[in-house]
Amino acid sequence: MTAGDGRARLRAALVEAGLLVPTSAAGVDGRSASYEAVVAGLEDVILRAGAGLPVASVRFPPVMPRTVFEKSGYLESFPDLMGSVHSFGGDEAAHADLLAAVESGAPWADHLPPTDVVLCPAVCHPLYPTCAGTLPEGGRLVEVSGWCFRHEPSTDPFRMQSFRQHDYVALDGPEGARRHRDRWAQRGADVLAGLGLEVETEVANDPFFGRAGRILAASQRDQVLKLELVAHVDDGPPVALCSANCHLDHFALPFGITTADGEVAHTACFGFGVDRITLALFARHGIRTDRWPAPVRAALWP
Amino acid sequence: MTAGDGRARLRAALVEAGLLVPTSAAGVDGRSASYEAVVAGLEDVILRAGAGLPVASVRFPPVMPRTVFEKSGYLESFPDLMGSVHSFGGDEAAHADLLAAVESGAPWADHLPPTDVVLCPAVCHPLYPTCAGTLPEGGRLVEVSGWCFRHEPSTDPFRMQSFRQHDYVALDGPEGARRHRDRWAQRGADVLAGLGLEVETEVANDPFFGRAGRILAASQRDQVLKLELVAHVDDGPPVALCSANCHLDHFALPFGITTADGEVAHTACFGFGVDRITLALFARHGIRTDRWPAPVRAALWP
Repeated sequence: MTAGDGRARLRAALVEAGLLVPTSAAGVDGRSASYEAVVAGLEDVILRAGAGLPVASVRFPPVMPRTVFEKSGYLESFPDLMGSVHSFGGDEAAHADLLAAVESGAPWADHLPPTDVVLCPAVCHPLYPTCAGTLPEGGRLVEVSGWCFRHEPSTDPFRMQSFRQHDYVALDGPEGARRHRDRWAQRGADVLAGLGLEVETEVANDPFFGRAGRILAASQRDQVLKLELVAHVDDGPPVALCSANCHLDHFALPFGITTADGEVAHTACFGFGVDRITLALFARHGIRTDRWPAPVRAALWP
Repeated sequence: MTAGDGRARLRAALVEAGLLVPTSAAGVDGRSASYEAVVAGLEDVILRAGAGLPVASVRFPPVMPRTVFEKSGYLESFPDLMGSVHSFGGDEAAHADLLAAVESGAPWADHLPPTDVVLCPAVCHPLYPTCAGTLPEGGRLVEVSGWCFRHEPSTDPFRMQSFRQHDYVALDGPEGARRHRDRWAQRGADVLAGLGLEVETEVANDPFFGRAGRILAASQRDQVLKLELVAHVDDGPPVALCSANCHLDHFALPFGITTADGEVAHTACFGFGVDRITLALFARHGIRTDRWPAPVRAALWP
């Protein structure tokens, strides 16, 4: 996938300013201290947006148990985006074969056995198995933030392979979950407006795999399960900066999460795309953060 | 690998207090807000320890290009610790086979092709290829911080599969690199003492693989290339909280890093084990951070 002209210019400007430090893998970049200062400010803005709510916090590492993929339907819907972690488990003879392959420039990783972990594809996925059991009356609200991986190498800076998400997740009955989704869609748009990013709310679908996936995508749209907050950051297609999702019982059923009345729970998440919003801020306000509009600077660094 | 009694008790106490949120994979835990507040305080302490030095900052994501492994010698020395990222690249028929394997409980990940990325095994590894070329007079000093992965599932909380490191890396001539290593070994011990963690400095070796690895380990010790700052946190074996490493030209040679005089550079890193130090603080000062000694609290949260 190649980025459009606007995206290529943005990426070139970010690299030239040292904000992104390219590696040889597409969509895998280092970030400068200046870039990370925006991320840190944005994380605080996101936390303040949930201040006063009865919210728990958990931070998961970038990997999660492989069994989550087996139960969550991820392999059914997004096999091509997964990151499965493999390692070497052989003896010295097998090691000699591995090194001979590396030495000769041959593929060397084809036969590595899988480990018990995979890369988190979305920051809320490792949460659900830890919530197995009966929810308290009124459900549960959790905020999670961390690194996600999707295998889609691209030169579009808005489509990194490794990126950060910050989610507010509700585990509740069907009504409570949908209300959470809708409230946060509004609250998220307000947060972005406070940073000078005007967004439109659109009905969207996930990039489900294959022919069966087209049916799943159509059904997701028909039921208005996914909303995206999209911004026009350049002359290219609009960029989704946040997404607001009703999962129905998609996670609660396989992971055994029930409401206080003993019904299968519903879950919903509102996700801020932390790296995407950071990039959108650079696209909108320019490369030099010291020249960003005063209200934006005050919001990020009060 | 199973943890000793003291480690098992520490882990049980951390889980019971909600500081660690276990998943079904060994050494892959969620962290609470309280745990993360210690991490954030510690990161600031580490940054203050380098304040005033001419240091650049870069943050890399948890994955890095696969080619780094091919050039850095990691596959030769630590194949069993690597995390190689694989994904699915097949058509709908192959997808049906994958899902049938998942459904039947059979291994399903054995034949996934490798992607162009691997998990970072140490936070300084992705840095070296980005420094290819000639260093400025006096070398270069960079601090990097982020997530590392080592495939060593364990119930010992000090041996996580996914953990954070914060390194100060010098790229310089041989003398400059060794001076950096030795200065930071002392500075790191002072930082830890300020947090109530008394350490001893020991000559150490990396866990090189196989028979050839035993020779490499002995040579590393003979040349005093690796120092570890170890603490006695319980009745078990001491825990390395920091490591100080002279790489000689191990990274500079394959990645083409030369000094201002045109010689092959040397590199050295001093690494703070961010999660290990955090865990050691809980082991030493107790589970409730509000009861930690005032000087430790003042250092973490000034």
